[in-house]
Amino acid sequence: MSATQSSSPVRVGFIGLGVMGRGMAGSLLRAGHAVTVFNRNAQAMPPLVEQGAQAADSIAALGASCRVVFLCLSDTAAVEAVLFGEGGLAQALAAGSTVIDTSTISAPATRGFAARLAERGVAMLDSPVSGGQQGAATGSLSCMVGGDAAVFEACLPYLQAIGSKVAHVGGVGAGQVVKACNQVAVTGVMLGVAEAFALARRHDVPPAVVREALLGGAARSMVLEKNALRLIERDFQPGFKAELMRKDLRLALQAGQDRGVFMPGAALIAQLLEGVCSAGEGSLDWSALGKLVETLSGVDEQA
Amino acid sequence: MSATQSSSPVRVGFIGLGVMGRGMAGSLLRAGHAVTVFNRNAQAMPPLVEQGAQAADSIAALGASCRVVFLCLSDTAAVEAVLFGEGGLAQALAAGSTVIDTSTISAPATRGFAARLAERGVAMLDSPVSGGQQGAATGSLSCMVGGDAAVFEACLPYLQAIGSKVAHVGGVGAGQVVKACNQVAVTGVMLGVAEAFALARRHDVPPAVVREALLGGAARSMVLEKNALRLIERDFQPGFKAELMRKDLRLALQAGQDRGVFMPGAALIAQLLEGVCSAGEGSLDWSALGKLVETLSGVDEQA
Repeated sequence: MSATQSSSPVRVGFIGLGVMGRGMAGSLLRAGHAVTVFNRNAQAMPPLVEQGAQAADSIAALGASCRVVFLCLSDTAAVEAVLFGEGGLAQALAAGSTVIDTSTISAPATRGFAARLAERGVAMLDSPVSGGQQGAATGSLSCMVGGDAAVFEACLPYLQAIGSKVAHVGGVGAGQVVKACNQVAVTGVMLGVAEAFALARRHDVPPAVVREALLGGAARSMVLEKNALRLIERDFQPGFKAELMRKDLRLALQAGQDRGVFMPGAALIAQLLEGVCSAGEGSLDWSALGKLVETLSGVDEQA
Repeated sequence: MSATQSSSPVRVGFIGLGVMGRGMAGSLLRAGHAVTVFNRNAQAMPPLVEQGAQAADSIAALGASCRVVFLCLSDTAAVEAVLFGEGGLAQALAAGSTVIDTSTISAPATRGFAARLAERGVAMLDSPVSGGQQGAATGSLSCMVGGDAAVFEACLPYLQAIGSKVAHVGGVGAGQVVKACNQVAVTGVMLGVAEAFALARRHDVPPAVVREALLGGAARSMVLEKNALRLIERDFQPGFKAELMRKDLRLALQAGQDRGVFMPGAALIAQLLEGVCSAGEGSLDWSALGKLVETLSGVDEQA
């Protein structure tokens, strides 16, 4: 990847053009990278082609033409299928290639995938992201990257195209671990805020008053500042869906169980999110966790 | 309280000269108020007398000479005893006086105390504080004040002597409710952070790396910024003792039970604090909550 190779730049592949993936692929294009895209549902590809991408006919074709391939898929099984299924990426990629997985999936499974790719001379970075649809569309995601330091350095130009905050947090799987930590921490904040608001409302103190008072002290948080407004304004349009947060907490708990970690708070919140989803509200923003707390507290929604 | 009365200023009483109370009484003196102090253990009074306070021989004597009386006591029973016990404040205070209770006690009990004082023409503000020993010593506490608006306005000169952030949050008891909300919220943040750190450590990611990565995003909080350093640096010297946070969460849960509020997170954290205290660590800082999570996760404390 020296300067003399600029006439034949590294072609970057992107597999998975959902809400997040299409934004990231667009960011790579805007940063001047040569991008080839593939999506199972081909209808997602033309908008990227209009932005300058090439569309591949198959995962194998993409793998044969790219030295760096991003994945943005829905779950662990989907990543495994794309990498190691029939006609998968692992067989198609040349030795010396790198897979950058931006999906939020299992940390232990990620380590296994990386080991299997390494047998073929293919490197892997796990780089789950936070920052949502808007962060993806504007290239301002936060990327938590696990993997070999030299591979990380080599891939910085691509990671910096999709993220404004790119942190190397450890070896393969560490990105998934830190993402899990993020979801455990952020939902812990939300449950505390939601219970505080329910307590206040049932004692006739407006949650907006509580928010204002607490923002000045030790209970200050980004969730109190931003997400908590959803509970005050009754706005549960996602945002980040409750069913996705449920998935992320399930992953966090699995990662915990894998090493015997005591996570009663995350387990409780995961259960509450099961309740949110099973009550048919999984497509609301994950702050609907607070809505459930209010409902079970007898808060009058009209109040 | 007009300017012409400056030759006979309102004398302010202060009952309860523990770590917090002695700081607040000192702040009132520094602000130029005439202060009379009383403490059950008389040894706490001479240092305040050296700063210019008068020492009262009894609660009744203090009540007879003061029109505004601060309380800073350990629990609901202590406040009830000082107000309504034999030789208590309620009998001694003239009609038109005001009691300002800075203790963290029961919100429902506070409403009852205020009603009983009102029968004697005595007003009450509940003004639990946050900001700790240092905030008390420097007059920079955060005061969450419940009570009649006119009484609040009249008492602002005294409240602003002890606090740099003084918020009127509602009627009598609302200060206690908001303080309870604060403790529910802040402990929720801590449990999330503690579980995230335990998960990270068991997956060989240093908690300092997690802290740094999470501070940049949606999981950002004051607890992650400050208190979490105690988990990284293994520093559990209080600070605010775990046994006091246990007391505060018990109060929050009682306030919740009083109105049927669903608070599974606070209940869980209260249980963990019972564990911290019963294991003999109640006099450590309340971040020892995270120490318990680590111990139960098999985290090597030497790591």
